[in-house]
Amino acid sequence: MDSVEVPEVVVLRLPLYVRALSQLMSESAEVVSSQQLGSLLQMTPAQIRKDLSYFGRFGKQGRGYNVRFLLNELQEILGLDREWRACLVGVGRLGRAIINYPGFHRDNFRIVAAFDGDQSQVGNKIGAFDVQPMSELSETVCDKKITIGIVAVPAQQAQNVINELVENNIKGILNYAPVAANVPMNIVIRNIDPVLSLQSMTFYLRHLT
Amino acid sequence: MDSVEVPEVVVLRLPLYVRALSQLMSESAEVVSSQQLGSLLQMTPAQIRKDLSYFGRFGKQGRGYNVRFLLNELQEILGLDREWRACLVGVGRLGRAIINYPGFHRDNFRIVAAFDGDQSQVGNKIGAFDVQPMSELSETVCDKKITIGIVAVPAQQAQNVINELVENNIKGILNYAPVAANVPMNIVIRNIDPVLSLQSMTFYLRHLT
Repeated sequence: MDSVEVPEVVVLRLPLYVRALSQLMSESAEVVSSQQLGSLLQMTPAQIRKDLSYFGRFGKQGRGYNVRFLLNELQEILGLDREWRACLVGVGRLGRAIINYPGFHRDNFRIVAAFDGDQSQVGNKIGAFDVQPMSELSETVCDKKITIGIVAVPAQQAQNVINELVENNIKGILNYAPVAANVPMNIVIRNIDPVLSLQSMTFYLRHLT
Repeated sequence: MDSVEVPEVVVLRLPLYVRALSQLMSESAEVVSSQQLGSLLQMTPAQIRKDLSYFGRFGKQGRGYNVRFLLNELQEILGLDREWRACLVGVGRLGRAIINYPGFHRDNFRIVAAFDGDQSQVGNKIGAFDVQPMSELSETVCDKKITIGIVAVPAQQAQNVINELVENNIKGILNYAPVAANVPMNIVIRNIDPVLSLQSMTFYLRHLT
């Protein structure tokens, strides 16, 4: 299986499968049909079978999927069977909420350093570590084997910060700043932006009220 | 133009166009080509022309798009030419960060009420208003013409809260709880979940390190 052959929209759905299967595991389910999975995820069984077919045959016709096996396979496919280390840039209100968010650690993502361009923030405690100046980015990324950069700076600083992360060997960007940032083709960027989500929601709501 | 004819993946991209065009407007650009828009959004010009073709003809062959016209049209298509009112459910650390997020208001989304199921939170000040008990949801949604519910409760409470919002005439859900929630077909739900974003990112990073 080669990553370039899998449509990105399918990759974006895989974590939803992982989450649904984890829920089923915690309810001690051993087998799940594509119908059941579909009703959990509000997708058609056909779509689910098609998505999973990119990665091999996981179920037997009419027998459903083994929950534990499918979960383990999808976690491995997504690279979730290892720990990923991230640094945070920007320790304002948003950055501090991100540091305190319990979901990252629970799912094998660890924030191991925090940076800020504002000299008055440097040296302050945030979570378990001290805020570092941007000048230490290069060394810390290398020393702590950081691959992911979480960007929580104001919009007008975001592109510069992202450039600096990319120059310092960061491969994935989780961007909380409300900008359409540019990254080289080999860098993966995900934008967390509630306003974008709301703006695609109102398309469907605009005739209702 | 009928909403059901437009693929959801196209609708999800429209807010990105709006953001890029707003940036161009602020830089006083009057015309933009699909090449320029493509390079801003990291999409091919062909994809952009195809997306926009669902909504009519916005550009002249070889002349590019009028920035202000296209922006206004897309805002109208997305229903962004009016104000949308939302209520928040859950006023813990996450809920308070959401209330304080400046992006909503700037983009015509206004949080006008906050609720919490925890009696000890009721009556506390949050932003400009008092936290209300869930028993007042129905009346407040109607009085304040609220269409959107923002869910910031712990995972295990989320489905119940979402059910209650839907029963009380909320049409769109912005869900921050890390659960795959079920909603009726006529309700639009968007999940804000940084872990899901990271998990679809590591698919592309897993061979790098």
